[in-house]
Amino acid sequence: MSGCPNFGRKHQLFQVRPFQKDDRDDAQLGCNKASRGDILYGEYLQLDKVVTAQVLQSELQGKKVHDEHLFIVTHQAHELWFKQILWELDSVREIFIKNHVRDERNMLKVVSQIQRIKIIFRLLIQQFMVLETTTAMEFFDFREYLSSASGFQSLQFRLLESKLGIPESQRVPYNHSHYRDNFRGQVGEALTRSEQEQSLLQLVEKWLERTPGLEKDGFNFWGKLQANISKGFDSEMRKLEQSPELDTKEEKMEDLKKQKAVFASLFDEKCHNHLLSKGEKRISYQALQGALMIYYYREEPRFQLPFQLLMSLMDIDALMTKWRYNHVCVVHRMIGSKSGVGDSSEYHYLRSTLSDRDKVFADFFNLATFLVPRKWVPKLNPSIHTFSVTAECCDSSYGSSEDSDQDCWDKEGR
Amino acid sequence: MSGCPNFGRKHQLFQVRPFQKDDRDDAQLGCNKASRGDILYGEYLQLDKVVTAQVLQSELQGKKVHDEHLFIVTHQAHELWFKQILWELDSVREIFIKNHVRDERNMLKVVSQIQRIKIIFRLLIQQFMVLETTTAMEFFDFREYLSSASGFQSLQFRLLESKLGIPESQRVPYNHSHYRDNFRGQVGEALTRSEQEQSLLQLVEKWLERTPGLEKDGFNFWGKLQANISKGFDSEMRKLEQSPELDTKEEKMEDLKKQKAVFASLFDEKCHNHLLSKGEKRISYQALQGALMIYYYREEPRFQLPFQLLMSLMDIDALMTKWRYNHVCVVHRMIGSKSGVGDSSEYHYLRSTLSDRDKVFADFFNLATFLVPRKWVPKLNPSIHTFSVTAECCDSSYGSSEDSDQDCWDKEGR
Amino acid sequence: MSGCPNFGRKHQLFQVRPFQKDDRDDAQLGCNKASRGDILYGEYLQLDKVVTAQVLQSELQGKKVHDEHLFIVTHQAHELWFKQILWELDSVREIFIKNHVRDERNMLKVVSQIQRIKIIFRLLIQQFMVLETTTAMEFFDFREYLSSASGFQSLQFRLLESKLGIPESQRVPYNHSHYRDNFRGQVGEALTRSEQEQSLLQLVEKWLERTPGLEKDGFNFWGKLQANISKGFDSEMRKLEQSPELDTKEEKMEDLKKQKAVFASLFDEKCHNHLLSKGEKRISYQALQGALMIYYYREEPRFQLPFQLLMSLMDIDALMTKWRYNHVCVVHRMIGSKSGVGDSSEYHYLRSTLSDRDKVFADFFNLATFLVPRKWVPKLNPSIHTFSVTAECCDSSYGSSEDSDQDCWDKEGR
Amino acid sequence: MSGCPNFGRKHQLFQVRPFQKDDRDDAQLGCNKASRGDILYGEYLQLDKVVTAQVLQSELQGKKVHDEHLFIVTHQAHELWFKQILWELDSVREIFIKNHVRDERNMLKVVSQIQRIKIIFRLLIQQFMVLETTTAMEFFDFREYLSSASGFQSLQFRLLESKLGIPESQRVPYNHSHYRDNFRGQVGEALTRSEQEQSLLQLVEKWLERTPGLEKDGFNFWGKLQANISKGFDSEMRKLEQSPELDTKEEKMEDLKKQKAVFASLFDEKCHNHLLSKGEKRISYQALQGALMIYYYREEPRFQLPFQLLMSLMDIDALMTKWRYNHVCVVHRMIGSKSGVGDSSEYHYLRSTLSDRDKVFADFFNLATFLVPRKWVPKLNPSIHTFSVTAECCDSSYGSSEDSDQDCWDKEGR
Repeated sequence: MSGCPNFGRKHQLFQVRPFQKDDRDDAQLGCNKASRGDILYGEYLQLDKVVTAQVLQSELQGKKVHDEHLFIVTHQAHELWFKQILWELDSVREIFIKNHVRDERNMLKVVSQIQRIKIIFRLLIQQFMVLETTTAMEFFDFREYLSSASGFQSLQFRLLESKLGIPESQRVPYNHSHYRDNFRGQVGEALTRSEQEQSLLQLVEKWLERTPGLEKDGFNFWGKLQANISKGFDSEMRKLEQSPELDTKEEKMEDLKKQKAVFASLFDEKCHNHLLSKGEKRISYQALQGALMIYYYREEPRFQLPFQLLMSLMDIDALMTKWRYNHVCVVHRMIGSKSGVGDSSEYHYLRSTLSDRDKVFADFFNLATFLVPRKWVPKLNPSIHTFSVTAECCDSSYGSSEDSDQDCWDKEGR
Repeated sequence: MSGCPNFGRKHQLFQVRPFQKDDRDDAQLGCNKASRGDILYGEYLQLDKVVTAQVLQSELQGKKVHDEHLFIVTHQAHELWFKQILWELDSVREIFIKNHVRDERNMLKVVSQIQRIKIIFRLLIQQFMVLETTTAMEFFDFREYLSSASGFQSLQFRLLESKLGIPESQRVPYNHSHYRDNFRGQVGEALTRSEQEQSLLQLVEKWLERTPGLEKDGFNFWGKLQANISKGFDSEMRKLEQSPELDTKEEKMEDLKKQKAVFASLFDEKCHNHLLSKGEKRISYQALQGALMIYYYREEPRFQLPFQLLMSLMDIDALMTKWRYNHVCVVHRMIGSKSGVGDSSEYHYLRSTLSDRDKVFADFFNLATFLVPRKWVPKLNPSIHTFSVTAECCDSSYGSSEDSDQDCWDKEGR
Repeated sequence: MSGCPNFGRKHQLFQVRPFQKDDRDDAQLGCNKASRGDILYGEYLQLDKVVTAQVLQSELQGKKVHDEHLFIVTHQAHELWFKQILWELDSVREIFIKNHVRDERNMLKVVSQIQRIKIIFRLLIQQFMVLETTTAMEFFDFREYLSSASGFQSLQFRLLESKLGIPESQRVPYNHSHYRDNFRGQVGEALTRSEQEQSLLQLVEKWLERTPGLEKDGFNFWGKLQANISKGFDSEMRKLEQSPELDTKEEKMEDLKKQKAVFASLFDEKCHNHLLSKGEKRISYQALQGALMIYYYREEPRFQLPFQLLMSLMDIDALMTKWRYNHVCVVHRMIGSKSGVGDSSEYHYLRSTLSDRDKVFADFFNLATFLVPRKWVPKLNPSIHTFSVTAECCDSSYGSSEDSDQDCWDKEGR
Repeated sequence: MSGCPNFGRKHQLFQVRPFQKDDRDDAQLGCNKASRGDILYGEYLQLDKVVTAQVLQSELQGKKVHDEHLFIVTHQAHELWFKQILWELDSVREIFIKNHVRDERNMLKVVSQIQRIKIIFRLLIQQFMVLETTTAMEFFDFREYLSSASGFQSLQFRLLESKLGIPESQRVPYNHSHYRDNFRGQVGEALTRSEQEQSLLQLVEKWLERTPGLEKDGFNFWGKLQANISKGFDSEMRKLEQSPELDTKEEKMEDLKKQKAVFASLFDEKCHNHLLSKGEKRISYQALQGALMIYYYREEPRFQLPFQLLMSLMDIDALMTKWRYNHVCVVHRMIGSKSGVGDSSEYHYLRSTLSDRDKVFADFFNLATFLVPRKWVPKLNPSIHTFSVTAECCDSSYGSSEDSDQDCWDKEGR
């Protein structure tokens, strides 16, 4: 949006002059009235840094390769957008950490910022199309100059993974060395710190555990659901037994029993915790209940934005694996699948990161296995079904971001 | 493509160590063997400059507005890509300026680089989707801090326009001041210089004038075409006169005459030059002939890449106006159509730049008006129709980029 | 998503066999057990109709032109998606018409369906890229066979325009004839009917008029806002008068006065109604107030989805004009800007439809002109600020779509 | 592009009335002059078939599910585009089969049509975004009605795979049954026939084998290359031995030897044929040589379009796997990863099709492993380096598509 006039819309009414440069200096520069004392586009964007940071190693070595410039700009654009993603991610995480999410007005911000990450990831995937205009031959001409500089050294991407919630233990080691070995000093510390902070996954998990309606002495969603599903299967089986249809009856009964067994696993807390310990589940038993509840009652006003949040988190997960996949494809094109120097091939390494291990929110996807007919879903009783957001639980001054003592989201969850 | 392993593929065979840092220093940093003496990812990309250049004016003023970060990153990403576009554009222009395009092997490079610009513009259009995740309200919260910093001050965009070939005289003045008033000192000089250099449009025009087959004492494309079209119309009119169909005959004859008149204008050099002087045409009469010839004979091996070039230039033209249109839409969303301070509205200004005045290659689009049935196109005679690229006209050592005296493209054009 | 296994996931638990074909017939066909008695992929999608509907006129005339197939498929794909857009649009309109939107649980559906339209439009814009792979020359080879078949005859597109809310009076006449002249018989009737139905614009307008908080004897948003803005300007002026800064003071005071005048127009109902009668505004004074209220209080739980709705409507508006613009670009490429037959050029006609006249929700964009600092926005008082959705106003059985007598959205609006 | 005026541009000059409907009939319909005797937009596109083919099974069963319409339209749009891809693919294959590719003028057509397929695939990937607006819950509501209709039954997708060149033996069996079991009768026959025709891969392979310059008694590219590489390694090793640098010398020598071994495999025809027989290579030894030659000499005018062709084939390959990957992601979202009924999970099946087995042109990607410095590439000697297209080898009448006896592409290859 350069060449962008809205950029500098002078809106004098509310304008405070941000930069009180010495007017005389400006006068000497012969500047016109409009820019006197004000910040210029290029200064604001620090373009002296951003568009001067393209130094071609091939040029330094005396053999300028035209396409190295594209290679640099593409990676820099990626890093710029990674910075933006981290900016959004940290903002969302802070809302959860400070528990501002109890004030359900903050959900609009949470959802909007997560959706922005989604759109940035889509752009990044598009961006590979630009890099794909270079060829293996062009890349060959300058890749020797890159020496050991490696994309594995992208701090921001690692931060992004760890802040989202890809646990250290899930990272596939590359070339037998721990992924963190690529980072040293301050940078390594930033990474270690990010691994100790609560990831978005952990924060969302805690929030889901407080989903209103889960409380056993209240609506008791989980208990009611289990009862309904059990009744539902019994009724289906009875109907089947009484049906005259003979040839496929046995087969169908077998299916019903298998289905019932699948659902039985849903209600087996021990089983869940076992899978959790093995890393095959990622969120607690209670959080899973919250997520399923939001799925079922997504149209309830109070659950509309939480539902959008869960969907968007799945989108980000899917987009991140698509990004990885597009990345693999570019690498295949650039260096082939056989490593030239005998060590383990990067291409095959990258393919291995495409497993579901790297899906942070896989549990939300897998809930699709546990859908039931609408009539099996417990009815909300009128007195609680609105989960209303009452006045006393929210801070009353509009726009205030101060913490309030009342806790909305988990009010009924206690 | 961070997290990108192909980035640093060590390909030791052809590796010369580009950076002979002092090994001892590295040892003190405790670096591992892999990175010893080598450049790191972050250093290579100068991330210390690129991802530290996001300073929010709102934060400096003590009222951090979350979305200002997006605003900055979006514009920086735009500027990064503008730099890449200029890199490609300058490379292509240099090939034309040095007349390397006579060696038709360079056409692959020309077409590939132009097509890359095309793909970057497509990405930039996509990129608006990210900015559109912010709202007028969010923008309102920080726009006061931007003071007079204006997108009209984007030097790179202005360079891009002038290097492509938007003449100074075509620029719509904004707020009664010349667009160049936004630039001062060194920056202004760069702009003035770029306006004095040959634009891509001018270079392509010169090259088209040399299209082999135009020479009057040779194939004489234009003469033959004029004769064929004249004969064609006569024959159509005769056929119509002899047809029994009565009621629409007159109407059809009228149409034929109008058509004939349209084509007559095509062969009227004075008319062309008049339109040229008014800025309604952009390329010379001779260049227009070359372009139409490439259109008609696009399948000739020698014209295949020239044809792709013309198509891609039209793509860029169309994409640039689409970029402008998307930009206008964002501005409308952010600031509405009414200016708050009474001066001329940016939105309406921007709309006005959407005219065909800003289409650099409009002439190529308008050639579509002058298509004729294939049978009217002059036949190539066997001895010249291949426009063969003979050995003596091209430099014989593969990969050499030295200038050769022989001139391929215009060999037959003299 | 062909080759799509989720397509036919047999989920026997809840399966009722939809098609009880005669098993014996199937047996004769030698089908395997899996497909016995069931519908096949190709039958389900009626592929016998869809993928046999590509008849090239050029082929019928004995001169097959390869690219005509692309031309047909592109238009058919457009029509398929138009059908889907109409499907969503009718669903949303029905929710409004039946006033189901009073039950705020339906807002999730409304917003999701509107956002789906948005994504389809984005796809349609992408889709032009496919058509752009053909050239004016290819198009020339078959356009004679299309005779008078004209895109202006696309019923679905006209329905779409009229159901969104482009009033008949705003349509630019083409070639001096009314746009509806292109449609005859049943088709014309469908169009006339759609123009008599309530458009989305009208329905949204009515709904906005009921925005809770507008009621004068209640929160009285409009009255409070006007008072606050007036006070705000007075205070700014006083501050300015007392400031020592001399040289720009006068200028700034001038600006403040202009600003104040702009806002005065906002509160001038007569002025609004005058612009409404001229077609320069599209929604009523009361609806405009509702929209601005939603803008300001978008974070209120009750306003979160309404806010998303307004944003999405603006997105659709912007996308539709972008679609038109992309269309214009394709036409320019295919037929040039000069009409060959002397009548008014289609290219110029299309350009003329790009005005703001065709922006249905322009009023929402223009509200950006009337933003004020957050502190000027009237505070919600605790007792009403949540606009709570109480139990009695919503239907209590989950999943029920029956109409309820209580009216939520306009409860407080009465 | 409905609402598309270029659609029916009446270009009366060259117009023959394609449909001589009885004028009286039209008169009775009261049609206006413009459409008399002409085909209408809706008729031309057979919209009576295309936009009436959306029959919701859920509606037939009395429980209309809104989102089933999207499901149908998405699949139909996919099938429409598959038809277009097949149209292009068959056209390209025909050019190769009839050996029209000997006339190098046809390469523009080949490349343009292949690039169109590329752009359609990109659109199809975008298209998943629309389907992703539905959720597992919505899908659950109607998936029972789909019974056994399965995407595996998409004939067109299977034809596409087999015409591109995915050999039957490479297809992963699904649910223990051969993929062709999903097709019966005529449809199955079409599939079997397509498997017997020459695939694009096979046709390109044959064409590559004739690459001019490969002939051993001529330029002898392969022989020269082998000699150059051998000399190159020897020289590198000698240089290394003479270098004073001690500590890494041994390591580097090791690397050089490994590299040399990798290249040795390139010149080992037996090894190649062994991998070919195992399906790990796809194209013949001779074809591989042709491809590498085109890579190295891509700037030669004669190789420019062949090079674009190879790049585009890789693009299509990559896009097809990306399409599959996007498909997998949608399926995961819709049905989770655990099969509800105990049989093998579709999700895991689909993931398994993502292996390199399904990459048709993997050999072109893997050539990236065998790049060498430009100075090692054999020099073209002036007399042959242009591979000139002489008059006698091409048909001399422009626009003619008749077969000519002379064979251009393989003229020097004999």
